[in-house]
Amino acid sequence: MTPFRHLYGPGPTNPYDEATAALGEPLLGHLDPLFIERLDRTCDMLREVWGTENTRTLPLSATGSGGMEAALVNTVHPGDVAVIAVNGLFGLRMADMARRCGAEVITVEHEWGTPVDAQRLLDAHPAPQLYGMVHAETSTGVVSDVATLGAAKGDALLVVDAVTSIAGSELRADDWGIDVGYAGTQKCIGVAPGLAPFTISDRAFERRVTEPRSWYFDLGMLGGYVTAGPGARTYHHTAPVAMVASLEAGLRRVLDEGLPAVWARHEEAGRLLQNTLEERGYELFAAEGSRLAQLTSVRVPDGVDSAAVRRWLLTERSMEIGAGVGEFASTVWRIGLMGPNATAESALRVADAIDEAVAATR
Amino acid sequence: MTPFRHLYGPGPTNPYDEATAALGEPLLGHLDPLFIERLDRTCDMLREVWGTENTRTLPLSATGSGGMEAALVNTVHPGDVAVIAVNGLFGLRMADMARRCGAEVITVEHEWGTPVDAQRLLDAHPAPQLYGMVHAETSTGVVSDVATLGAAKGDALLVVDAVTSIAGSELRADDWGIDVGYAGTQKCIGVAPGLAPFTISDRAFERRVTEPRSWYFDLGMLGGYVTAGPGARTYHHTAPVAMVASLEAGLRRVLDEGLPAVWARHEEAGRLLQNTLEERGYELFAAEGSRLAQLTSVRVPDGVDSAAVRRWLLTERSMEIGAGVGEFASTVWRIGLMGPNATAESALRVADAIDEAVAATR
Repeated sequence: MTPFRHLYGPGPTNPYDEATAALGEPLLGHLDPLFIERLDRTCDMLREVWGTENTRTLPLSATGSGGMEAALVNTVHPGDVAVIAVNGLFGLRMADMARRCGAEVITVEHEWGTPVDAQRLLDAHPAPQLYGMVHAETSTGVVSDVATLGAAKGDALLVVDAVTSIAGSELRADDWGIDVGYAGTQKCIGVAPGLAPFTISDRAFERRVTEPRSWYFDLGMLGGYVTAGPGARTYHHTAPVAMVASLEAGLRRVLDEGLPAVWARHEEAGRLLQNTLEERGYELFAAEGSRLAQLTSVRVPDGVDSAAVRRWLLTERSMEIGAGVGEFASTVWRIGLMGPNATAESALRVADAIDEAVAATR
Repeated sequence: MTPFRHLYGPGPTNPYDEATAALGEPLLGHLDPLFIERLDRTCDMLREVWGTENTRTLPLSATGSGGMEAALVNTVHPGDVAVIAVNGLFGLRMADMARRCGAEVITVEHEWGTPVDAQRLLDAHPAPQLYGMVHAETSTGVVSDVATLGAAKGDALLVVDAVTSIAGSELRADDWGIDVGYAGTQKCIGVAPGLAPFTISDRAFERRVTEPRSWYFDLGMLGGYVTAGPGARTYHHTAPVAMVASLEAGLRRVLDEGLPAVWARHEEAGRLLQNTLEERGYELFAAEGSRLAQLTSVRVPDGVDSAAVRRWLLTERSMEIGAGVGEFASTVWRIGLMGPNATAESALRVADAIDEAVAATR
């Protein structure tokens, strides 16, 4: 049997019980009217967590990185200028993908651990076709302001990675001027990984690449699957029906609690963890004022073996926390309190366990 | 609550109980050593069902059509000549994808309902870089001989769609000369849709596109995720851990029964259905001698309303069968007996129910 793990890393988090239970329900065919209704309800709830009225809001049949690919293959025309903010791994990945789509990519590099500076993006090029930025950088635990860039983007499209922010932090796609957004299910939505909540504005859809390099992520075809009226749905690919059932249940759980309450719960749990760690002498990694609540990055204390601590937590407490990324692999830990784990109890449990692990592995 | 459906369409099928139970197990992190072991075991079992020793055999984080895209974006270099057999929808889709990858595509059209003629593919071009064909056409219920083309392919790569054949019909990727194969989980493996079992030979991998248009399906990066030794796994994207647990359980169930026994069970159930339908006066659609056992295509009798019958089955018997595809949408039914549904009991249940439905809707 698989042991229970406390999943306090950068994701996946432990899912909500409702999301797990839905995976065990009888399977529906992907063209069953009951499944189509479920997909419609799921898309409606996705619009709520995105803060959008975009018709084309749907769960893509891939993980969050597949959502990133869908965002770019459908919007980047060869030769387009794409200004991409890089303040962590996922900005780098966005730049890589945009380049593969034929964009002339201008990256605006920021020190890891600091937020995106919208003005630097605006200054990088007078009239780019596309801006890209990460709302909540999973690799560093930093949240960035999206609205400033959204208000000043001019004619450009704004593509935003909301993988770690969705359903955990305030997110208002329409108010903030997000044209294309993608996310994941395995963070604050509290569902297993495997789907990418996605949204695209009419304006971006109208400018889309009409035959993108990717068939699988071709929104022109995918759009018909979710937006056509009853009976007019066109078959594109077999939807991952079990995962969609789980996503519906997770979203229902989130919206029953209410988005402001869920955001507040993530905020309180994360701040409790961060305050507790600082009180105990740990140093936080992300810049003050830009710290994500749902994902805390901490510097590994001098003389402490990062990997040994993580191994001890896994074997002695069946608890997972994340390593840092890139050059911070062995000097930063990443601790997620997401979905059902966004509680004071989890915050104190992981803080105490880290203290124990540090003492045990010195 | 979701009602139980008898899923006798072209897929998804009802999953094996073991596969459903695995979805409810505690979630593991995607970098947890226990998950890496699970992924290794899953890849080992995938090698068995593929009939291959390819190191790079893995479940892609997408549905079967994502597997098709991975096959082509990694092997088609712009300007390559790709000879693609079209004897149904999925051959057409392969041609579409190869074209988007920049191939000069030569399609070899066959009448729908008939098998692929290897000689016609060989005659289509003297030295193509790639041949593509579908082993088991889900749109028509036809199985085609792969080995003849594999033996005569020369220097070309052979890409094969095994979505509906894997774990249901004899499949021997290495013996048959398959260089790249992709499949789905929701047919004879008896697992919910959402992953694409995939295999690529060393020969094809060495010739791969080094920076394919798709980042998500870039095998150069994905390969490191499954082939590196312990501790050296590189993070690419967050694996859909719940679906992989389910796939492991489904494959274990299949291999515990034994592949020859599973193939025979699919064969017996399908032939029983086909014989029963013919005895009752129905006309089968696929050409005699090339009929898939796990997916039976039947002509809708004259004067019978295809959609009304399917609606009656769904509402009165909670049973799904499939419509035909393309020009056969209202003149053909597709009946799948796959995974746990490959039984005499299911064969007779669906045959009886169709008789009832035809009588009730006349």
